[in-house]
Amino acid sequence: MPWTPVWYMRQAGRSLPEYRALRREGSILEVLRHPELAAEITLQPVRRYGVDAAILYSDIVAPVAAVGFGVDVTPGVGPVVERPFSSRGDLARLRDLEPDLDLPWVAETVRILAGELDVPLIGFAGAPFTVASYLVEGRPSRDYLRTKALMLTDPATWHALLDRLASIAVASLRAQVAAGASAVQIFDSWAGTLDPDTYRRFVLPATRRILTEMAGSGVPRILFGVGTGELLADFADAGADVVGVDWRVPLDVARRRVGPGPALQGNLDPAVCVAGWGPTAERARAVLAQAGGTSGHVFNLGHGVLPETDPAVLERLVELVHEETSRGRR
Amino acid sequence: MPWTPVWYMRQAGRSLPEYRALRREGSILEVLRHPELAAEITLQPVRRYGVDAAILYSDIVAPVAAVGFGVDVTPGVGPVVERPFSSRGDLARLRDLEPDLDLPWVAETVRILAGELDVPLIGFAGAPFTVASYLVEGRPSRDYLRTKALMLTDPATWHALLDRLASIAVASLRAQVAAGASAVQIFDSWAGTLDPDTYRRFVLPATRRILTEMAGSGVPRILFGVGTGELLADFADAGADVVGVDWRVPLDVARRRVGPGPALQGNLDPAVCVAGWGPTAERARAVLAQAGGTSGHVFNLGHGVLPETDPAVLERLVELVHEETSRGRR
Repeated sequence: MPWTPVWYMRQAGRSLPEYRALRREGSILEVLRHPELAAEITLQPVRRYGVDAAILYSDIVAPVAAVGFGVDVTPGVGPVVERPFSSRGDLARLRDLEPDLDLPWVAETVRILAGELDVPLIGFAGAPFTVASYLVEGRPSRDYLRTKALMLTDPATWHALLDRLASIAVASLRAQVAAGASAVQIFDSWAGTLDPDTYRRFVLPATRRILTEMAGSGVPRILFGVGTGELLADFADAGADVVGVDWRVPLDVARRRVGPGPALQGNLDPAVCVAGWGPTAERARAVLAQAGGTSGHVFNLGHGVLPETDPAVLERLVELVHEETSRGRR
Repeated sequence: MPWTPVWYMRQAGRSLPEYRALRREGSILEVLRHPELAAEITLQPVRRYGVDAAILYSDIVAPVAAVGFGVDVTPGVGPVVERPFSSRGDLARLRDLEPDLDLPWVAETVRILAGELDVPLIGFAGAPFTVASYLVEGRPSRDYLRTKALMLTDPATWHALLDRLASIAVASLRAQVAAGASAVQIFDSWAGTLDPDTYRRFVLPATRRILTEMAGSGVPRILFGVGTGELLADFADAGADVVGVDWRVPLDVARRRVGPGPALQGNLDPAVCVAGWGPTAERARAVLAQAGGTSGHVFNLGHGVLPETDPAVLERLVELVHEETSRGRR
């Protein structure tokens, strides 16, 4: 690629008027059952922004919903669980995922996209900790009290839960790659709530297993979380090819923590984009400078696009990244 | 002191049954007008836990409420502002604080406590960024969109706002010290939402001014925020005698970032205390080990006590810290 590639987490979604026009009311899990619609939503930001990758329009709880755990995604709230995971007996509610039977529409969406896109399609899955946090808390959480209590007081059940969720993630990712996804991102969005010792002991092994089992797939594996500044070396150690970095950690600092191996992805503060083009351009140039060159850097925001973002800002931002980094190459 | 001192952020409050018994309904700002009551609430955790310091029962928005900005604290929500700060004209709504006239009950509470306590009393103020975030957003926020937009698009007004808030904080802190507080903590609870460049440019100068103006007071100055792993060196650079560290950053890592000067305060994950005594004891020992000895460490949680915490756990935790660190001294 003649420039630093750029895409945006949550590039498909509420900041786009064409998305709001298309999107019916109700749960995303219902939308996903319509492959033509999900594919169109995935394509919208590629057309408008000229980003260098598409990311499948889906949700990290889709697989656990598909095995019948009783999860839905309430608009404006997030994942909501009817009967949260509370003890060992709930493991039986998490059977193996059979993607072809349980959510055949996902592979169908990927196939449509693989035929239409001329940029890579990124598939994804939720990391075991982050999915577990929804299943245990029953809804989005601030303090993760139940999750941490389960982990610390019943480690056997906790590890069994994460193991189940890792298997489900691997099955889902393999199906996406088989259908045509050419990279995968594992979202451990909320792992940053853990101190590093606790992360290493109770979370890292299951995440590492996903990355290891996907190593043979031949596609780049991205691992991302928010507030994970102290976990970046562990993310690299877990086997990520690309480590996602939120906006709190300058990329030069992140590079020292992950070492020379993995690429870095990030890390413009999405709130800066809401403030308008002037601040966005200024901070984007700082991010590019901290990335230290075009090699080993995928430009992205430090978290998902905020609904309040003006799409025109994100469009100009793609141009800026391409222009600045093409210049750097000459 | 023959051991590592320990106190807990939000040690006075909803986790204590004697607090719930005493606390009338409604805003904390109303309670603060009753010095005997505020003093009693401040004393409760000292009696029950045997902590090595009291922290004044108050709220970081009390001073801006007292100058008439139109702020209240809604139970279960947090600070709520009637007419949020939105542009330069709102600066006129933030006149100088005259503690003796505007909130005389605070000094009165401190005087009562100074007479009753045989441990130090910590006074406190909100740091300019964190108070500004409430004034601008109008309520607790997740993304700080309005705050960041004001900062980035109207820096002159932003700096004037932070300057006003720094003056108010200094006036409030001086009054507390004059009345008998023997240390001060500056809460920049939400500064961790900023990338380090933005923090240094738009926030650090006003915080540094508070610390500088309080240097002559002769009391230790603690600076604390959540998710501030990448800002710890700046917190030291701003002039803090003690740098508060949340649970995400191991204290040995924090020590490398702040250098040898300041003491460190922290940093047990408050959610671990909710999980019970076993996990609490184990993680507390890890925190003490990472602190690397009794010198230059004030044991605390990494953020405030959660309402769900069993007070018996916090009581045993004081004993554990005292016992482990007395042993270490021999």
